[in-house]
Amino acid sequence: MTRRIVCTYHVTADADTIEARAKGIAVEQSVEMPLAAITDQRVMDEIVGKVQDIAELAPGLYAVTIGLATETVGDDAGQLINMIYGNTSIQPDTVLADAAFPPEILETFGGPRQGIAGLRARVNAPDRALTCSALKPQGLPVPGLADLAYRFALGGLDFIKDDHGLANQHYAPYVERVPAVAAAVRKAREETGGQTRYIPSLTGGLDQLREQARIARDEGLDCLMIQPMICGFPAMQTLVRENPDMAFFTHPTMTGAARIDPRFLHGTLFRLLGGDAVVYTNHGGRFAFTREVCMELGQRATRSWNGLKPALPVPAGGMTLDRVPEMIECYGRDVMLLIGGGLLLAKENLVEETRTFQDHVAALSAAAPASVAAVAE
Amino acid sequence: MTRRIVCTYHVTADADTIEARAKGIAVEQSVEMPLAAITDQRVMDEIVGKVQDIAELAPGLYAVTIGLATETVGDDAGQLINMIYGNTSIQPDTVLADAAFPPEILETFGGPRQGIAGLRARVNAPDRALTCSALKPQGLPVPGLADLAYRFALGGLDFIKDDHGLANQHYAPYVERVPAVAAAVRKAREETGGQTRYIPSLTGGLDQLREQARIARDEGLDCLMIQPMICGFPAMQTLVRENPDMAFFTHPTMTGAARIDPRFLHGTLFRLLGGDAVVYTNHGGRFAFTREVCMELGQRATRSWNGLKPALPVPAGGMTLDRVPEMIECYGRDVMLLIGGGLLLAKENLVEETRTFQDHVAALSAAAPASVAAVAE
Repeated sequence: MTRRIVCTYHVTADADTIEARAKGIAVEQSVEMPLAAITDQRVMDEIVGKVQDIAELAPGLYAVTIGLATETVGDDAGQLINMIYGNTSIQPDTVLADAAFPPEILETFGGPRQGIAGLRARVNAPDRALTCSALKPQGLPVPGLADLAYRFALGGLDFIKDDHGLANQHYAPYVERVPAVAAAVRKAREETGGQTRYIPSLTGGLDQLREQARIARDEGLDCLMIQPMICGFPAMQTLVRENPDMAFFTHPTMTGAARIDPRFLHGTLFRLLGGDAVVYTNHGGRFAFTREVCMELGQRATRSWNGLKPALPVPAGGMTLDRVPEMIECYGRDVMLLIGGGLLLAKENLVEETRTFQDHVAALSAAAPASVAAVAE
Repeated sequence: MTRRIVCTYHVTADADTIEARAKGIAVEQSVEMPLAAITDQRVMDEIVGKVQDIAELAPGLYAVTIGLATETVGDDAGQLINMIYGNTSIQPDTVLADAAFPPEILETFGGPRQGIAGLRARVNAPDRALTCSALKPQGLPVPGLADLAYRFALGGLDFIKDDHGLANQHYAPYVERVPAVAAAVRKAREETGGQTRYIPSLTGGLDQLREQARIARDEGLDCLMIQPMICGFPAMQTLVRENPDMAFFTHPTMTGAARIDPRFLHGTLFRLLGGDAVVYTNHGGRFAFTREVCMELGQRATRSWNGLKPALPVPAGGMTLDRVPEMIECYGRDVMLLIGGGLLLAKENLVEETRTFQDHVAALSAAAPASVAAVAE
């Protein structure tokens, strides 16, 4: 009996073409050739994708469920996305809506190594919503970024991440930026007794990613941010394997819109690959996801799933302090609220504004439900 | 004077919102924070993206031209795509239509190392259209794949590529597949005096990509295929740099549709990053690009561009022998015709069918224009 990954594609088609279209996707995502040209019976039986169901969602829109042989994936995260969407991503009538993975895939990729509990332990906050902000703008020299981090940490923030635009530019190279920011955060922690964590953004090829992870480790850091769609799934997989004690934040840059369902991409796939905290663009900010999509994304990230640890939802993208009550009502306590520019607008009052943010989140958490799953039920 | 990459986005918007939307993209792709929160004048002047032009293309559709500071990119191919599309890819009202790069970007990434001339030299075909087919289906054990390659080579084919689904699966692991196929092709070449080249598909993380490139080199191979959207741009950049004598084929899997203009992605960006031959889905096959888009893609790949070598267009995706005259008429002689399943349907007559394909292409090339650029003028 062939083990299969069961993928669901949403396909725009007419009633009289959907069956052929579904078979076309099953072939495209497996053998990618005319079945009439296949002479090997095992390939026909065990490798060719199988259409399992076609359901009409709306006039002209179908949910097509296809079983793809697990053995075509092996143990490479790149080959995983190649098999479940790959060439079909080039066809504009398709959306990758979801996939259900057999246990061997879950074992191979392993999911979050720290999970929500590991993130909470890092900042000694067992039961409230967590907070985060970002170091920006890019172009600021290292002392300016370190000063920002110092003030965020003085204000008691839980997590401080690099802006995803901070790479290895000449005006703030990683090798100077990360030690300086880490030292600034340590200094503030010593002064306040707080637990603020700094999350550097890793960029470049695997050699550089490894070197940057090493530098972070040498600085005593225990959180890293990566950009799965830019560094590539295989690089993410390697980093997660090689740094089992690090908490990984995934950044959504280059995730696109509308072609891979964000609930699946962030809530399921990035979690499967080891994302402990998944940053995504919240509803009502600069981006277009609906509230329903965002809540379902959060449910996916935190739901019980064959023993895989839960990943923490990190809604972001143009969030402001006045959104805090609504966000905690929406997501409950298992959330990290990421407010970047909205905090930086406070300028010389950044420490106080950060403290206000932090206190507000803590106070509202007391009466909040445990998680977005609880909210939605 | 700040050096800038000039990006063109196609944006769906109303006439009264497009100006704000354009500014929003300029901020999103640079500092990603409210300008009012920026205190550093150099950042305001030199790092913040600048809207250079807004042109109405059609009612509700605008071409927005934005200058992004080159210094935000540095020398990392991942950061290049992060800066020119990154977060804006998550906004469904945008398409990355094009980008013009200043000379330092062209120098940093360098373009094709072999170019069309290097591909022609490999198969001793200075002036005709080239041919290619693919080893499939996945699931076939190594001897079956090697036998296919042997017969393609006996038929005189120029290039044989791995199907992009062939990774490192247990039924045909790279370390067994590539030496066996390379040996089969060598054997056929010795028998026919031909020049057929085998192009293995590299997959996995950078460690595995490097090891696979080394194995290919040890087998005397001089062409490699990579999947830029899956291995990641930084890994592609590293491989191209470390293997300056190899010809690189780019495979379009996971390139998506409609969010990054395929003319720019394959014809410009993959060429910039060192693709010598760019495989893409031709019009009239299983995919949706129009003839006009495909021809412009080919023009982009082959046009004169600040001394960068031209990349060879490789239209593919459901092509058949009866399309050969029309494809050569469309693309001229600077093209590689890739027919996979359409040839494999010949089964036991594969050698003869391959020879027919090869002879047909050679014969039609004699009267064909030099390239798709010449066709279109």
